[in-house]
Amino acid sequence: MQQYFVPGPVTNPYQVQEKDLLKHLFSVLRLQEGEQLIFVFDQGEKWQARLIDRDAVLFELEQSVPADKELPVQVTLACAYPKGDKLELVAQKATELGVHQIWGFPGQWSVVKWDAKKLAKRQEKLRKVVLGAAEQSKRDLLPQVELLESQAELLARFTDFDLVLVAYEEAAKAGERSRLAQALGQLVAGQRVLLLVGPEGGLSPQEISSYEERGAQLVGLGPRILRAETAPFYLLSAISYQLELLGNQ
Amino acid sequence: MQQYFVPGPVTNPYQVQEKDLLKHLFSVLRLQEGEQLIFVFDQGEKWQARLIDRDAVLFELEQSVPADKELPVQVTLACAYPKGDKLELVAQKATELGVHQIWGFPGQWSVVKWDAKKLAKRQEKLRKVVLGAAEQSKRDLLPQVELLESQAELLARFTDFDLVLVAYEEAAKAGERSRLAQALGQLVAGQRVLLLVGPEGGLSPQEISSYEERGAQLVGLGPRILRAETAPFYLLSAISYQLELLGNQ
Repeated sequence: MQQYFVPGPVTNPYQVQEKDLLKHLFSVLRLQEGEQLIFVFDQGEKWQARLIDRDAVLFELEQSVPADKELPVQVTLACAYPKGDKLELVAQKATELGVHQIWGFPGQWSVVKWDAKKLAKRQEKLRKVVLGAAEQSKRDLLPQVELLESQAELLARFTDFDLVLVAYEEAAKAGERSRLAQALGQLVAGQRVLLLVGPEGGLSPQEISSYEERGAQLVGLGPRILRAETAPFYLLSAISYQLELLGNQ
Repeated sequence: MQQYFVPGPVTNPYQVQEKDLLKHLFSVLRLQEGEQLIFVFDQGEKWQARLIDRDAVLFELEQSVPADKELPVQVTLACAYPKGDKLELVAQKATELGVHQIWGFPGQWSVVKWDAKKLAKRQEKLRKVVLGAAEQSKRDLLPQVELLESQAELLARFTDFDLVLVAYEEAAKAGERSRLAQALGQLVAGQRVLLLVGPEGGLSPQEISSYEERGAQLVGLGPRILRAETAPFYLLSAISYQLELLGNQ
């Protein structure tokens, strides 16, 4: 059943008013009276709904649906701005893999330099990508996207997290192979994790120092060198595997 | 240091003869006498090499480099043909993540239908993508690509593997969450694993039956619904995490 994120509060019957969603429901999906879908309201409440009045766009909320698709920890992914539209690929896949928030920041060695106007435009595009991916992967929550103008903003937020992990290629080259597993094995439900991934050219020694000073752990992702956009897939898959399939404790 | 796959046998000095590589070394990389790179020969032998004669394209093999970048198990990824150029994205990322072989096959519900000519063209393109990714991620081996014309060819090869895992969305929906971890926890070094991933529309009940009859295990990849091209990233990351970071005995 198709799923859509809608603004709350939960009211029954529920009237859809967002233009984009109306267009999608009736021009793309060609929804008919009597047909069903799932609405996810702001607070993460999921309801199975049936179209009961086409003209007034009224849906009857038939039954609540379990919200059980989220990772047990809240994961924020912070990526240094990569080239081209790679951040869109990362945002789409990270959303499928359960990310809670996606941040971009200007890495010291990021090739691209985006001004405030460009960032606002990119952010808008990324939010659409994330919305589509969250609906398709049946997420309970819509991941938030924020593109930062400076690395100082990122550093100031380190204290909001229980664990900060930095994907670090040099760790992989040096044969470091167990820190990620140790860190993930100690996570408990409800904790907040920040994942930091550099740009194509990597993170500078200065950046690495400033992360370590603030308590970040440098982790290798196996012996192969992963591209900047591949590291988030590995990290998020490993978190799901450790917490959802293996199960900590 | 840049890495390149070259045909064996290992001879010292080594003369490069492949046209594509010559063009890359001297037109793109603008290699000068005295500069170094790494050659990986057919058998997986890695050598640090220095250009000693620009005109004869002769390299001195200075020292052998450890070949320690491969997963401890040999993983073959078989993807039902997806739409567009998604298989290229999968091949690139799977190579970075350590896949040993990449196969494509026509899924019953694959939207695209490729004839032999189209398959040959696609295979050629995929091999280039895989070569680039294998060089960049410093693999010891070049993953092989093969696009099959029928699913019968795929089924006939099941007996070549110690473990066949099928990514199965319905397992995720039904809340199945531990089979993948159980299966990966039992792997031992040197074993051969086949990963089977369906197309956008999923695998048909008939396909699922024919896989199960031949001993395949259906595994869920966490509670979220992953797109066809995202499932391989999850599976390969989980295999690396379990075997290389957690470490099976």
